Amino acid sequence: MRIRSSFLAIFLLPSSPSHSLPSHSLTFLSILLSLRSSLCLMLNPEKTQMVNVVIRNLGLPSLEVEVGGASLLSSSLLMPSSFLRFMCANDWMNLLIKTQYVSDEVRMWVFEEVLPNGEKLTDVINKTNENANYLPGIKLGRNVVADPELENAVKEANMLVFVTPHQFMDGICKKLKGKIKGEVEAISLVKGMEVKKEGPCMISNLISKELGINCSVLMGANIANEIAVEKFSEATVGYRESREIADTWVQLFSTPYFMVTPVRDVEGVELCGTLKNVVAIAAGFVDGLEMGNNTKASSSNEVLSAAIMRIGLREMKALSKLLFPSVKDSTFFESCGVADVITTCLGGRNRRVAEAFAQSGGKRSFDELEAEMLEGQKLQGVSTAKELYEALNHRGWMEMFPLFSTVHQICIGRLKPDAIVNYRNFGPNPKL
Amino acid sequence: MRIRSSFLAIFLLPSSPSHSLPSHSLTFLSILLSLRSSLCLMLNPEKTQMVNVVIRNLGLPSLEVEVGGASLLSSSLLMPSSFLRFMCANDWMNLLIKTQYVSDEVRMWVFEEVLPNGEKLTDVINKTNENANYLPGIKLGRNVVADPELENAVKEANMLVFVTPHQFMDGICKKLKGKIKGEVEAISLVKGMEVKKEGPCMISNLISKELGINCSVLMGANIANEIAVEKFSEATVGYRESREIADTWVQLFSTPYFMVTPVRDVEGVELCGTLKNVVAIAAGFVDGLEMGNNTKASSSNEVLSAAIMRIGLREMKALSKLLFPSVKDSTFFESCGVADVITTCLGGRNRRVAEAFAQSGGKRSFDELEAEMLEGQKLQGVSTAKELYEALNHRGWMEMFPLFSTVHQICIGRLKPDAIVNYRNFGPNPKL
Repeated sequence: MRIRSSFLAIFLLPSSPSHSLPSHSLTFLSILLSLRSSLCLMLNPEKTQMVNVVIRNLGLPSLEVEVGGASLLSSSLLMPSSFLRFMCANDWMNLLIKTQYVSDEVRMWVFEEVLPNGEKLTDVINKTNENANYLPGIKLGRNVVADPELENAVKEANMLVFVTPHQFMDGICKKLKGKIKGEVEAISLVKGMEVKKEGPCMISNLISKELGINCSVLMGANIANEIAVEKFSEATVGYRESREIADTWVQLFSTPYFMVTPVRDVEGVELCGTLKNVVAIAAGFVDGLEMGNNTKASSSNEVLSAAIMRIGLREMKALSKLLFPSVKDSTFFESCGVADVITTCLGGRNRRVAEAFAQSGGKRSFDELEAEMLEGQKLQGVSTAKELYEALNHRGWMEMFPLFSTVHQICIGRLKPDAIVNYRNFGPNPKL
Repeated sequence: MRIRSSFLAIFLLPSSPSHSLPSHSLTFLSILLSLRSSLCLMLNPEKTQMVNVVIRNLGLPSLEVEVGGASLLSSSLLMPSSFLRFMCANDWMNLLIKTQYVSDEVRMWVFEEVLPNGEKLTDVINKTNENANYLPGIKLGRNVVADPELENAVKEANMLVFVTPHQFMDGICKKLKGKIKGEVEAISLVKGMEVKKEGPCMISNLISKELGINCSVLMGANIANEIAVEKFSEATVGYRESREIADTWVQLFSTPYFMVTPVRDVEGVELCGTLKNVVAIAAGFVDGLEMGNNTKASSSNEVLSAAIMRIGLREMKALSKLLFPSVKDSTFFESCGVADVITTCLGGRNRRVAEAFAQSGGKRSFDELEAEMLEGQKLQGVSTAKELYEALNHRGWMEMFPLFSTVHQICIGRLKPDAIVNYRNFGPNPKL
């Protein structure tokens, strides 16, 4: 899988409880919202008392803020969203961080690359405050400092956010090993899994094992384009044990436009974020088939699409529970579950390219379509479907997951796109 | 609530195990697909051996049919869907029954009305084989006999299907009382509930109580327009005790294009069918708001719509379980749950009219919009929201269900349409 760039950002919050929190939170949020960008963020721990200071400093309307209490959660960072404006360029790997109210240095690790004019990307960012390569024309906060040295950037951090394509995670963890200081909390926004013969290894688990730290996850229904116009988005934080840590993450990410809900189910939340992309490929196939047959009104395949989403959710839930019996049904009613499945199946690149694939009757390969439609970037759903297929095959679970296994077989041309609407698979699944 | 017409159909299957089943099944199906038409169908009991006879008679490709066994279920009625063609006119109260392979008389009770030219509707149907008033231009099966006498039509029946607007159910049950013979099974496709101060009374329960018979329900993601072009649709049968009875209904309704799944949860399935219309009104408000602000691309509110569906599902599940502790979480993953919520929130009249309401900023009333857009027909979602509001208010449950109660307050003009995107309600609901 060729990645045009990887982009890692590291944030160092000062220890002084000044008005630095919201700006960092917003910067953080902007990174979060890019989601699929390849980032690794690091922050000093959240100081709850900062919130109060900041709210006063910003002269916001009176708010009931109980410092340190649960009521801080979503309402605590209630500030005009105009403080932060960002846009994502066509390339979904891009990221903009533009914070107008950041007063402290933001150190951002950028995976170094040399631009066509011979300059280094980090130098350009530091000189122009713009990511000329991926988000030209958009000013980053003046206090954002691009840093090509991962180790240097992480050494003071005790909150880590991972937002990198999943195939880089192994290497990143190996580099970070031994470089992380004592009390560190991590959160992963990474979609995908490391699939080995014996089954998928979750990224949160990889981080925990390699770095010896606790790792939460954040997944959910949010699309960078939506946030760019300050539209509502939401996410789910999956945490393992400490509700306090979950609340810290929720507090850090929440804004009036970005609703974050904690759920004690790391694997359930993480598998939702990963598997939904396979469901989106299936939804794209359905849309492509329908369009091909020319008889439909624009909305006439809603029932079929809804059925695909329902079956996708069923297989997501069943597989998650087979792999991790601790996974809860209720997780699939959260943003990371039903809402993200709907969002990803209605929009998004997985659905869109899969639609084009089906429209071509499977005659154009995903490689070709990705080159044309995504400038060579690869679809998460296609690679996850492949890895999933291998794992299901290895465990003898193929028949239990007809949607998942059909998607891969269509992707590689072994089945025709219309195999996705094998209605037999739509009924009750006695194997599950 | 003004209803332009109610339309009740009664089917009498002959007791001879001839090739009458599939045609009746198809007729049955077509009625089912009209869903919101005001129908009451009655059938003699399903004879499983008929299926085999019929499949042979129709010269269908070889099929593995185990008569009387579970394998009959969805595959048993595998026949080309072209046997049945029907369309629904604009008026959703309309129904077409057109069966080309019906060899036995189909007696259909039609709520009598006099047409503008002075003729009775039943006479016109019997003379022209067309429902000139509601489905002009569409031929019904030649063996369909319209009958204005309810009692006459039901007297031989032992399977009843109710598909009438819910506010007529009380009267219909009273009329049928004492007219139903011994071993009778009923199924209700009726959306809505009889709301009394002490809480909602489910229609299935009303039927059971009034007629002293067992009543299943059928709900799910199906829109008449989709079926009209032979698109895939699905539904969920909610049954109370006997799996055998559930299987009979499933067998009766299933075709390759219509997937029916049984679930032992009458109240859960029925409440899904009823409450989803309120969620669709909320989804329409969101779409209307978005359109009003002119900044959105056509698909840019997907995240917000998905969030509304998620919260709607959460409130549907929570309310159902509060009212009936027997309701299962898994029901909401069935077609009647997540799939129907998606379908209804993406398409359908509740969403459409609510969108127009929000676009007008709430300045045009639902009465006015219904008159203009639905020729005076009323939206199920608006009346259900009102009844729901009263029930929630009576029980002191308002705060637990912010989406449900906000919808009603917007409908009656007490709140502005944008109150639907009160993001506080989108986070975790500590009351549930």
